[in-house]
Amino acid sequence: MEVMDALNLGEFAQYFSKIPTFPLFDLAYYIVSILYLKYEPGSVEVSRRSPVASWLCAMLYCFGSYILADIMLGHSPIDYFHNNSHIILASAVWYLIFYCPLNLFYKCVAFLPIKLVLVGMKEVVRTHKIAAGVHHAHHAYHHGYFIMIITGYVKGSGVALMSNFEQLLRGVWRPETNEILNMSFPTKASLYGAILFTLQEVHWLPVSKSTLICIFTLFMATSKVVMTARHSHGSPFTLVESWVSHLLFGSPLAVEDAHNHHHTAPAAASAPASPAKSKEELSEGTRKRKAKKAE
Amino acid sequence: MEVMDALNLGEFAQYFSKIPTFPLFDLAYYIVSILYLKYEPGSVEVSRRSPVASWLCAMLYCFGSYILADIMLGHSPIDYFHNNSHIILASAVWYLIFYCPLNLFYKCVAFLPIKLVLVGMKEVVRTHKIAAGVHHAHHAYHHGYFIMIITGYVKGSGVALMSNFEQLLRGVWRPETNEILNMSFPTKASLYGAILFTLQEVHWLPVSKSTLICIFTLFMATSKVVMTARHSHGSPFTLVESWVSHLLFGSPLAVEDAHNHHHTAPAAASAPASPAKSKEELSEGTRKRKAKKAE
Amino acid sequence: MEVMDALNLGEFAQYFSKIPTFPLFDLAYYIVSILYLKYEPGSVEVSRRSPVASWLCAMLYCFGSYILADIMLGHSPIDYFHNNSHIILASAVWYLIFYCPLNLFYKCVAFLPIKLVLVGMKEVVRTHKIAAGVHHAHHAYHHGYFIMIITGYVKGSGVALMSNFEQLLRGVWRPETNEILNMSFPTKASLYGAILFTLQEVHWLPVSKSTLICIFTLFMATSKVVMTARHSHGSPFTLVESWVSHLLFGSPLAVEDAHNHHHTAPAAASAPASPAKSKEELSEGTRKRKAKKAE
Repeated sequence: MEVMDALNLGEFAQYFSKIPTFPLFDLAYYIVSILYLKYEPGSVEVSRRSPVASWLCAMLYCFGSYILADIMLGHSPIDYFHNNSHIILASAVWYLIFYCPLNLFYKCVAFLPIKLVLVGMKEVVRTHKIAAGVHHAHHAYHHGYFIMIITGYVKGSGVALMSNFEQLLRGVWRPETNEILNMSFPTKASLYGAILFTLQEVHWLPVSKSTLICIFTLFMATSKVVMTARHSHGSPFTLVESWVSHLLFGSPLAVEDAHNHHHTAPAAASAPASPAKSKEELSEGTRKRKAKKAE
Repeated sequence: MEVMDALNLGEFAQYFSKIPTFPLFDLAYYIVSILYLKYEPGSVEVSRRSPVASWLCAMLYCFGSYILADIMLGHSPIDYFHNNSHIILASAVWYLIFYCPLNLFYKCVAFLPIKLVLVGMKEVVRTHKIAAGVHHAHHAYHHGYFIMIITGYVKGSGVALMSNFEQLLRGVWRPETNEILNMSFPTKASLYGAILFTLQEVHWLPVSKSTLICIFTLFMATSKVVMTARHSHGSPFTLVESWVSHLLFGSPLAVEDAHNHHHTAPAAASAPASPAKSKEELSEGTRKRKAKKAE
Repeated sequence: MEVMDALNLGEFAQYFSKIPTFPLFDLAYYIVSILYLKYEPGSVEVSRRSPVASWLCAMLYCFGSYILADIMLGHSPIDYFHNNSHIILASAVWYLIFYCPLNLFYKCVAFLPIKLVLVGMKEVVRTHKIAAGVHHAHHAYHHGYFIMIITGYVKGSGVALMSNFEQLLRGVWRPETNEILNMSFPTKASLYGAILFTLQEVHWLPVSKSTLICIFTLFMATSKVVMTARHSHGSPFTLVESWVSHLLFGSPLAVEDAHNHHHTAPAAASAPASPAKSKEELSEGTRKRKAKKAE
């Protein structure tokens, strides 16, 4: 902590953790989320056939984390929908991405440099959500460590955790996989983040919340921006996870493989290994091709 | 409004909107709903194999709107089940429709003139439910316009919105479609009704609630009775929807088609066009044949 | 009641119904439940591929009844997870059953004499849960007879009622059946138990709650122990059910068949008759073979 004091990082972290996410960061969150929805095969046809279903999917992509967290804590699942301005902003983004003439808005925000900025900003919102979720659960259950972790986790992962049911809304059903069986990087990071924030909340982690928010945001934003820029779907956790799995659960060590994976991430060869790829892990190239074909 | 005053319609509307729906109108609602359940392929076998599953399905058909609205507002999903008399009445209807000797009760209520009266009475209950749902949500969230619309919508649509899961209870799974992707007339009308009642509730629509209930009930009852009598599944909204979709979402204009559809509604030729027909839209003839075969 | 007084059974029942279930009986409940999870085809692979999904399934097996009852009464579905000690105990059991070196723990608890004791102890917990569920619902809805029955039922049946969704978590989807369509013995007994405890709670059954708990526990424990020992999946209710179904629902009488079934329960010939066997009904032999193959 002394080093941080010297660098005046504590004050910066304090300031950083207090930044209001609405409307700028939330806007970036909505744009990136609905962009991912448009990448999903079939979503463009759905937007033509049934705008109501498409709008509902977009709302799940933008507010899925609030819906899940409200369900987990026993509140109304649509409680967050009383924030009319948030809903209208997200609806406007949905309309522009799916129905803008000449597909102009989509082309703008999918342009790599702009997208990288938006992706980074989305992670700021994610970290704030995890911290808020853990704090909220702590308020309701003072010693409910598992409840804090679960709430922070669903707040960070959002729609990914209910992707099976979100797909069902679009008439797609893939029961052979789900986000828990094949965790993507953001889902895994949300789980680890929720554990960290829970440890901080019950004072087992000797660090201030603002510092943790700052560090975790930096880590998430950097990772996601690098992964998006390199069209990669390797995870920085692979090495550690492989060792922990080996020690705890007796899984065969996959260090060699993981090592290669980490350094030659965009290798197409790694694709057939995981047949059930999570949506946020699909290489950007494939996605764009799919989205274009769907137009 | 002056015309209405002159015709003394205001007082009539006031009186009409205050009619208690229990037990007469609710009874009609239960009969028509469980009749639709019996039309579903496979439901008669389920009633033989597992009366508990059949009873649960019947309860979902009768009280699905309350269950969904309670879930949406964060209450107990079975809260409505403390109305023992309603549950017992609906259970009696279920028993008579499925197990009455010689199928007498079913034959009576499925007799067209009687059925037309019951169908009309069902729409009275639907309108009351939408109005009550919007009012209830308004009470909980004063400025939650979206919450009001959603609550009114689920109150009006009922089991249709959870038909995928209701079918699952009977061992049927059709993931390729759902009521949001292919909205039937009652579901669409419930959505538009919920929007109208929400506008009224926040005083953006310069009309009294009783008048709105009266007009909307008349519209719904007339439409459904005519559609049932003509074995039609065209929707009176097709023309307007087609233009709005064209302007807002760039869908190709289907005016010609819609026009034909509207005037030659019972044409069998229109059937293969929509492979995923909603249950309330199936022509009555087909249904009865199916139900008879299932016996 | 006089006979019972003479035998001093009333006091014994009083004492028996007050036994705390944590930690001893709950431990047995967790062990047997997670044992059944390990018997499920594919669950061992899931525990290798995704420990998080496996842990979640184990938690559903151990606490599914609390989750469902909390949902039914409108509380937070993870409310029970604030009991950290229960969660940690169940997690330890999960870890030992799935990852213990040499599979030692599994071999111990799956050893028939030990398993019979555990199975008997599990039924003690089940009865306590049904009684507590009915009592809890009675507290919330004084005259909600149906709510009491439903709450007691889900408290007794637990994960079985949501087995479709529990399987989905493991990437398995069997929509053609569910626990309501093909009720297993414990699910049926929970339903009848919930009805009995509801009748007792509203004083329509002239018997004290402790006596009812005592008798019902004895019946359940004996039935399950005998069924486990004989590798049987016949139900002691078959004869009565067949007559009641015949009288109420006009089902064809299956007395002859049921009689044979009851006495020659482990006969392999009865297996092809019910293609969709519930998990708790699978003969122990088949299960062990499956579990061994999966290793």
